[in-house]
Amino acid sequence: MTERSGRGLAESHDHQGRRAKARAAVAERGAAHLLVTDPRNVRYLTGFTGSNGQVLLGPEPGDDLLITDARYDLRAEVEAPDLPRTLDRDPFGVVLPLVVGQAGPGGQLLVEDHQLTWAAARAANDRAAAQGLELVGAGRLVEALRLVKEPSEVERLAVACDITQRCLAWLFDEVVTIGRTERELATLLERRFVDDGADGVAFPSIVASGPNSAIPHHEPTDRRLQAGDLLTIDCGALVGGYHADHTRTVAIGYLDDRLVEVYEVVRAAQSAGRAAVTAGVEAGEVDAAARGVVEDAGYGEAFVHGTGHGVGLAVHEDPPVSRGATGTLRAGIVLTVEPGLYLPGLGGVRIEDTLVVTADGPARALTDTPRELRVL
Amino acid sequence: MTERSGRGLAESHDHQGRRAKARAAVAERGAAHLLVTDPRNVRYLTGFTGSNGQVLLGPEPGDDLLITDARYDLRAEVEAPDLPRTLDRDPFGVVLPLVVGQAGPGGQLLVEDHQLTWAAARAANDRAAAQGLELVGAGRLVEALRLVKEPSEVERLAVACDITQRCLAWLFDEVVTIGRTERELATLLERRFVDDGADGVAFPSIVASGPNSAIPHHEPTDRRLQAGDLLTIDCGALVGGYHADHTRTVAIGYLDDRLVEVYEVVRAAQSAGRAAVTAGVEAGEVDAAARGVVEDAGYGEAFVHGTGHGVGLAVHEDPPVSRGATGTLRAGIVLTVEPGLYLPGLGGVRIEDTLVVTADGPARALTDTPRELRVL
Repeated sequence: MTERSGRGLAESHDHQGRRAKARAAVAERGAAHLLVTDPRNVRYLTGFTGSNGQVLLGPEPGDDLLITDARYDLRAEVEAPDLPRTLDRDPFGVVLPLVVGQAGPGGQLLVEDHQLTWAAARAANDRAAAQGLELVGAGRLVEALRLVKEPSEVERLAVACDITQRCLAWLFDEVVTIGRTERELATLLERRFVDDGADGVAFPSIVASGPNSAIPHHEPTDRRLQAGDLLTIDCGALVGGYHADHTRTVAIGYLDDRLVEVYEVVRAAQSAGRAAVTAGVEAGEVDAAARGVVEDAGYGEAFVHGTGHGVGLAVHEDPPVSRGATGTLRAGIVLTVEPGLYLPGLGGVRIEDTLVVTADGPARALTDTPRELRVL
Repeated sequence: MTERSGRGLAESHDHQGRRAKARAAVAERGAAHLLVTDPRNVRYLTGFTGSNGQVLLGPEPGDDLLITDARYDLRAEVEAPDLPRTLDRDPFGVVLPLVVGQAGPGGQLLVEDHQLTWAAARAANDRAAAQGLELVGAGRLVEALRLVKEPSEVERLAVACDITQRCLAWLFDEVVTIGRTERELATLLERRFVDDGADGVAFPSIVASGPNSAIPHHEPTDRRLQAGDLLTIDCGALVGGYHADHTRTVAIGYLDDRLVEVYEVVRAAQSAGRAAVTAGVEAGEVDAAARGVVEDAGYGEAFVHGTGHGVGLAVHEDPPVSRGATGTLRAGIVLTVEPGLYLPGLGGVRIEDTLVVTADGPARALTDTPRELRVL
């Protein structure tokens, strides 16, 4: 266990403050009640981490209610001691009468229509209508609050990123060698994350060697590293619910000139993308900065994904950093910049860092592993 | 790597046969097209395992289409070589014109309304209506096919269960001792799964000691084992997409008489539940058999969850094995039997096995770790 372990970081966020902001956003929609069903949003607003939990936000803080089931009663007591709770596997059965009682007939209940399934919404709509209530889609109301990270969140992301790049450096320095399999590298890296203080992995590591490196989301196989391979490792540690996301590509033994050229194009594109991450620009401008370098070099067709994405309680969250994305970057938004080029049969290169937008000046890099081509 | 490793088991299921059955079920609803969006269902019908993929089933096998994005192009080529595919992040944009072309105006497109979100369904409905198409919820049509497992699926579940109980036995025999933390035990067990040939874990292991064992879904902490503790470990290996699910509770050093009594009630309840697993009974009868033992012993209030659940490509799937559940058990259904009693502040006991319903006679146990109280 190291000093920079994430284990000491309790769930010490200001959940009541977050609920106050969400309540204000609900009021702005002309409603007084929101049922939050997305597990990340429930965690954000309450601290509760169980797999089954919903939170009803009412007009006043004293009206808020956590709904879970008996498996999670004690966990809820520990994680969300400030919230009354009801143990019931039918959240609408609990919530609809409460909302009718407070809002009266003709009232509205906002729901997370991007999370609730169509079947569940239809059934709930029928029950709500029978009580004179209307269900209304709230869209990504809580996600909008999650967009700008609080200092306590940036701290967790920074620890997760620090563990990630420290372990990746160890892997490159001490483990990667001809003959190792992709699966071995993934396993050893992920174990190191946990041994270095992570709660777990943010996502299954991508370890892609040789021709497999041309597959952006490759799953590790028993293929052994060979001289002349590119090796792309895309990985992240998980700390207090927050996800790191970090990628480097290295060469094994030597690298053909063609692939060196590809590497340098990606490196220049990633540098341009990082430089574009400043408060006030649109996310699409970051994509355009990276993509422009790639297109100018004649590799536009080989850059088959967006330049990045927000990262936080989810590994992929708002804002998208893709072609034409319109979200304006603000201080405290955390996102990845990860251009990649993929030449089927030959190999691929991706370079990815996680950055925090600052109020003025350049973004703060949470990952900063050297980006020069490294031949191991 | 052992002989019983899951790694050699390629994705060699009969995907075309499964699609034929799904096609027949679609026709029974009076429709000719189904858009499958649930990732487990996509995998079941095609073999494709990427995180973004949808499959359109049309009236004839030649009409079937896999939709994914460029990140997964090569993976789709390897995993689903028999299916044409389109790379597009807007599946409805691809599918609606195809269905209109084949079904004509007034046609129907079945969708997985238990998976599609309300927001996505509303948007798709609007687009479909503009082209004269109607979207219709298909319910759990593909899940109904997944209910009875094929021999190739039972084989994978058996390997996953075998790895699980072998590693759990190793943990109890060689690792569990006073002073070990819950987190250490979880980490060592999960690493052993992978070293013994699993692809990964079916779910984050529950390792709950002392008072924590009264929390059914406890997450491992740094609490150290003490004499007098109950220790519940609920875990599973993942093999070829199939999930094992297995729980045993042991005592550390000694056990108070009260908890010995609780243990024996759970053991008797689990035995009764297992004995009830036969073709032709309702799933609720299995729950009633286990719950009856608990209630007769006066502990009904402490049994806070259902007796079990189906298991396969998802760790929790059909059929539910809970109070009043009406699904009739048939040969080839795989389910868990896992009664548990939880006494807040004192501790809890859960005993869980994964079973295959057979055509006649008792269920086949895929896990069979001894159930007598073990004091380590």
